[in-house]
Amino acid sequence: MSARVQPAIVGATGYAGFELARLLLRHPHAKTPLLLAREGSGSVATLNDAYPQVSGNGSYPLEPFSWETLAARGVDVLFLATPHEVSRAWAPEAEKRGVRVVDLSGAWRLRRQEHRAVYGFKDADVAAADRLTRKAVYGLPELHRKKLPSATLVANPGCYATSVILGLTPLLREGVVDAEHGIVCDSKSGVSGAGKEPTSKTHFMEVADNLTAYAVFEHRHFGEIVEQLEISSGQIVFTPHLLPIPRGILSTIYVRLKAPTTAAAVHEIFKSFYQSAPFVRVFAPGKLPQIQYSVHTNYCDLGFALAPDGQRLVVVSCLDNLLKGAAGQAVQNMNLMFGLGEQEGLA
Amino acid sequence: MSARVQPAIVGATGYAGFELARLLLRHPHAKTPLLLAREGSGSVATLNDAYPQVSGNGSYPLEPFSWETLAARGVDVLFLATPHEVSRAWAPEAEKRGVRVVDLSGAWRLRRQEHRAVYGFKDADVAAADRLTRKAVYGLPELHRKKLPSATLVANPGCYATSVILGLTPLLREGVVDAEHGIVCDSKSGVSGAGKEPTSKTHFMEVADNLTAYAVFEHRHFGEIVEQLEISSGQIVFTPHLLPIPRGILSTIYVRLKAPTTAAAVHEIFKSFYQSAPFVRVFAPGKLPQIQYSVHTNYCDLGFALAPDGQRLVVVSCLDNLLKGAAGQAVQNMNLMFGLGEQEGLA
Amino acid sequence: MSARVQPAIVGATGYAGFELARLLLRHPHAKTPLLLAREGSGSVATLNDAYPQVSGNGSYPLEPFSWETLAARGVDVLFLATPHEVSRAWAPEAEKRGVRVVDLSGAWRLRRQEHRAVYGFKDADVAAADRLTRKAVYGLPELHRKKLPSATLVANPGCYATSVILGLTPLLREGVVDAEHGIVCDSKSGVSGAGKEPTSKTHFMEVADNLTAYAVFEHRHFGEIVEQLEISSGQIVFTPHLLPIPRGILSTIYVRLKAPTTAAAVHEIFKSFYQSAPFVRVFAPGKLPQIQYSVHTNYCDLGFALAPDGQRLVVVSCLDNLLKGAAGQAVQNMNLMFGLGEQEGLA
Amino acid sequence: MSARVQPAIVGATGYAGFELARLLLRHPHAKTPLLLAREGSGSVATLNDAYPQVSGNGSYPLEPFSWETLAARGVDVLFLATPHEVSRAWAPEAEKRGVRVVDLSGAWRLRRQEHRAVYGFKDADVAAADRLTRKAVYGLPELHRKKLPSATLVANPGCYATSVILGLTPLLREGVVDAEHGIVCDSKSGVSGAGKEPTSKTHFMEVADNLTAYAVFEHRHFGEIVEQLEISSGQIVFTPHLLPIPRGILSTIYVRLKAPTTAAAVHEIFKSFYQSAPFVRVFAPGKLPQIQYSVHTNYCDLGFALAPDGQRLVVVSCLDNLLKGAAGQAVQNMNLMFGLGEQEGLA
Repeated sequence: MSARVQPAIVGATGYAGFELARLLLRHPHAKTPLLLAREGSGSVATLNDAYPQVSGNGSYPLEPFSWETLAARGVDVLFLATPHEVSRAWAPEAEKRGVRVVDLSGAWRLRRQEHRAVYGFKDADVAAADRLTRKAVYGLPELHRKKLPSATLVANPGCYATSVILGLTPLLREGVVDAEHGIVCDSKSGVSGAGKEPTSKTHFMEVADNLTAYAVFEHRHFGEIVEQLEISSGQIVFTPHLLPIPRGILSTIYVRLKAPTTAAAVHEIFKSFYQSAPFVRVFAPGKLPQIQYSVHTNYCDLGFALAPDGQRLVVVSCLDNLLKGAAGQAVQNMNLMFGLGEQEGLA
Repeated sequence: MSARVQPAIVGATGYAGFELARLLLRHPHAKTPLLLAREGSGSVATLNDAYPQVSGNGSYPLEPFSWETLAARGVDVLFLATPHEVSRAWAPEAEKRGVRVVDLSGAWRLRRQEHRAVYGFKDADVAAADRLTRKAVYGLPELHRKKLPSATLVANPGCYATSVILGLTPLLREGVVDAEHGIVCDSKSGVSGAGKEPTSKTHFMEVADNLTAYAVFEHRHFGEIVEQLEISSGQIVFTPHLLPIPRGILSTIYVRLKAPTTAAAVHEIFKSFYQSAPFVRVFAPGKLPQIQYSVHTNYCDLGFALAPDGQRLVVVSCLDNLLKGAAGQAVQNMNLMFGLGEQEGLA
Repeated sequence: MSARVQPAIVGATGYAGFELARLLLRHPHAKTPLLLAREGSGSVATLNDAYPQVSGNGSYPLEPFSWETLAARGVDVLFLATPHEVSRAWAPEAEKRGVRVVDLSGAWRLRRQEHRAVYGFKDADVAAADRLTRKAVYGLPELHRKKLPSATLVANPGCYATSVILGLTPLLREGVVDAEHGIVCDSKSGVSGAGKEPTSKTHFMEVADNLTAYAVFEHRHFGEIVEQLEISSGQIVFTPHLLPIPRGILSTIYVRLKAPTTAAAVHEIFKSFYQSAPFVRVFAPGKLPQIQYSVHTNYCDLGFALAPDGQRLVVVSCLDNLLKGAAGQAVQNMNLMFGLGEQEGLA
Repeated sequence: MSARVQPAIVGATGYAGFELARLLLRHPHAKTPLLLAREGSGSVATLNDAYPQVSGNGSYPLEPFSWETLAARGVDVLFLATPHEVSRAWAPEAEKRGVRVVDLSGAWRLRRQEHRAVYGFKDADVAAADRLTRKAVYGLPELHRKKLPSATLVANPGCYATSVILGLTPLLREGVVDAEHGIVCDSKSGVSGAGKEPTSKTHFMEVADNLTAYAVFEHRHFGEIVEQLEISSGQIVFTPHLLPIPRGILSTIYVRLKAPTTAAAVHEIFKSFYQSAPFVRVFAPGKLPQIQYSVHTNYCDLGFALAPDGQRLVVVSCLDNLLKGAAGQAVQNMNLMFGLGEQEGLA
């Protein structure tokens, strides 16, 4: 574990990419990350131009991306904080060249074509794309930790998806949920999840003092949730909302249990499932997570309230969409891919 | 209709009371409201002391409350923007003296003792309290318009309850909801709903950049919702959240329909039910309300999204908790009690 | 005064234009305003498209602008809520056709070429432009009330400029300010002042939890301030800041007095100067205005604090940038142009 | 430098105290800080109770304060994040017992009695208090770095004071400021600076969408500013404002220079003065700091704009009031007191 990993980032000027750069810059077992700019991706010369907060001293230049540069600099892992079309095109090339990839886009998260359709992919070679999809590891360490050491392509999960999947998996695996009855996931996210591009939706005047439900029955993270939970799409409703805050997600999840139970039993299910997961905090019965507790950390916080009938359960799941929902999880994945401590650079 | 109504307000220095005072001050068929202060309710001498924004010119003095003052000044309607204990004690006295009351607290909204328990009432004469409860009209004009002209005690609905009841009633009355399946109401409210008292929960640092779920399965508005919807308490889950905004509520409501249907049919149910309701705006399919559209108005905005299977329905209901959720609704009730135009003073 | 004015608005889909439409729609002596769209100014068909909050019932269609339409519909006053280049081009045409104009842009506010330069005007006929400039009335009623009844072109003041000029004029006219010493105006504005166009500067992530000083020594309102205060540009420093709030301006203004004085004397200067100004509220010594008091009103609130030495004075001036700083002031100007009550439609 | 420092904190449940605890918990050369509660200071048993965000794993118990505990646990430095009355009483006791203190309150920052009066101190033994005051080092390392290694009592500066003093000192030391002319400091702070106690001033409804100037000519930090800048109180005006954001200060500082100069020369003055100061970032001419750049860091960011006349200068100074304005600076002081690297635990 004494060797240090050499990471490279494409897309470090986006919100998730910048968080990633900051994490890697202070990671004790990572070398200074190479910051690479795609051709035509803008005129920013250094990370400092885009984010004066990055440092008072160091300057972090962006270099033009090329596969040759990756090779010449001995890059061990390439982080793609790029639009999904770019990730879709580049991952096969990376595979060919033997470069391990952690992709923060939605390009490689989905197994079923019906779910991928929402991204509009028109792969020239569908069979090849299918093969690489099957090879990709869905980078939620709490579910797929064992596959990460050998992974060559890690599909870093969506932010909403992470909050929902971590909130539901223990209950579903334990078999206590009446999934036929239907599950409701009411999720609320801060604005950084909408990206850095200025649009009418991210204009301060449209967000401040407001709350908006959007993409009901149409959100891209829906497919991830269904596939990872191994349920049918008819068994779950997922409604995202845009909160007037910079960062953080809170998902309120409603399930009916097959039989009445106690708060202690529900608590035990969560505690037991996450006993070896350093980045999931299970709240004691009677306490609920809040967005402010998880923001600026890599934790996913889970709590719940059980109805007096012992059968209707409300799970509250909170995380920082830029950390556990993106860049922090990407580093967690990197740590596990390279045999580093899971919490390195994330404490 | 040429005669003008003389209103009085107790509690005009609270958030809802102040909105009420502002509405009545510019109401074309109301005389200047009498502003009355309960003994020991603080040292504010004029409304301007508490709210310098009220005017640059006029001064609005608070007078000590007494039943004699009410009589002497020919008060037609007494608005109680007071704690529920106060309203619980004062309404019988008002009845005795023949003073019509619009009560903004939760004191007289609930028929069932199991729901009232949450307010901790210990009525000395339970039978008398029951009688007055039965006499009280639940002041949601969209449901009980016809009872208002003769009402002597109007229980102005809770803000969350208004948003949920207006979002569900048309569907339940039409008989299309599978209520056995269970209904989920995920509601989010601005901070003014939490009152003017400074507490750790309303401290800017605890609210800003945050979102909190609270009082799950325990919120006081739950009883109103169940009673007015005429369902059982096991058929609905209601989760309130505290939003980092000053005012506004958005409720996301999840129901399963008994049979698949179309968006046009759902839209028709809402349009038809609210065709004579001037303060409910039904959004066309494909458009959803946002909090910013309803804030500073007396509208409740309703929209919906229907799943591709035509059977799972998400209703979005928005309103301003201080207006349609409190003071605006109180004025709407006054208008109907006194034969004024329903929209007078609220346009 | 029984006749009603027919207004028309170009640019009602911008923030100030929309506020103007709302004010005129409920103005008791204005007919329903004609809403006109410039060619190529977007695909919005009705005001409701851009602002669903405008009403639940009425629909407010935008019509294509033409001078013929203005004439055919008997328009009495044309409000230009347009970019300054458009206003610069259209005002001469309006003059030719005898249409009275209230222009909300900066096109006609400035007498001195050095100040106009900042707008980049390249008038084909400079002499004609100068003539029209001299004819234009700077529409700050508190200073130029008497010129408004006969005005054909009213240059509605800038929002920052209104707050600063109203805060300083009484002191300068009274001759108590040591202007040689220099005046400092530190102004802070909400985001609506930056316009509806989504840019990186108005992105929620750049504004929320932040404060930014900008355009120091370079802001366009500087020229207005200097000209209206009749001081030299070397005598005043003006620094605007962008606040993380939707609307409102607070200007903190620092002056040195020629001689020590008392708070009572300063108060008297303000009270006396604004005794006939219905939209300026002078706060008593010891009380300072806050943005929240003036937002959603047409008031400019003024207060001050005097140093123990009686010679250094801090004036605080607050207003709503979309009302007293734009649309409200435009209506106030219309009222005075047409002999209506100054407060009509603004209470 | 291999030995690790043992810190103790009184007041870790306040905002600054909590930041301090977080910093020390991850400080590479500090042992786990002892968290001490004053008698009667509340019922919080662990830091986690007050701040669930502190960790998912560790529990941080608060122990009752006693001097014996300090001695028994080998405490090297006692941080007082306590009200100034408490700090005033305890510092002499600490001196007696040979415990080095970093005091985050205003108790020991002021040399002149006229300035101390604002804190209302009634020292039983004025001479003793004066002696200890003279012994105290004003803990602004950029000014007093050399005194820190031997300091026994460090008076950690106020947040506003830090932003103003760092923005002005280079110019005053260089002798370019016309101080006679007067200096204006217009400062804006986030709400955490107002403390954790819920009051009407920190209620979300009073802060959100608002801006307030307060304590003009009366703020407690004024004395620090005057003493540290070595100017007279008549030469500076300081106006604090409360911003609707959780944390961060931006001070806009206005000075007149004795003679016209260039932006390059001003930049050189700042660069040169802070060349060895790791926590001051001087922005290049044409760039101004924003609050968002400094929040969550220990930097004070400085930038400026020079008028075309070369003589009127606007300096913008930004910092995080809880870090460089409080807890971060306290750690920086500790580092220098104990011969550690100045940036340890603060990068």
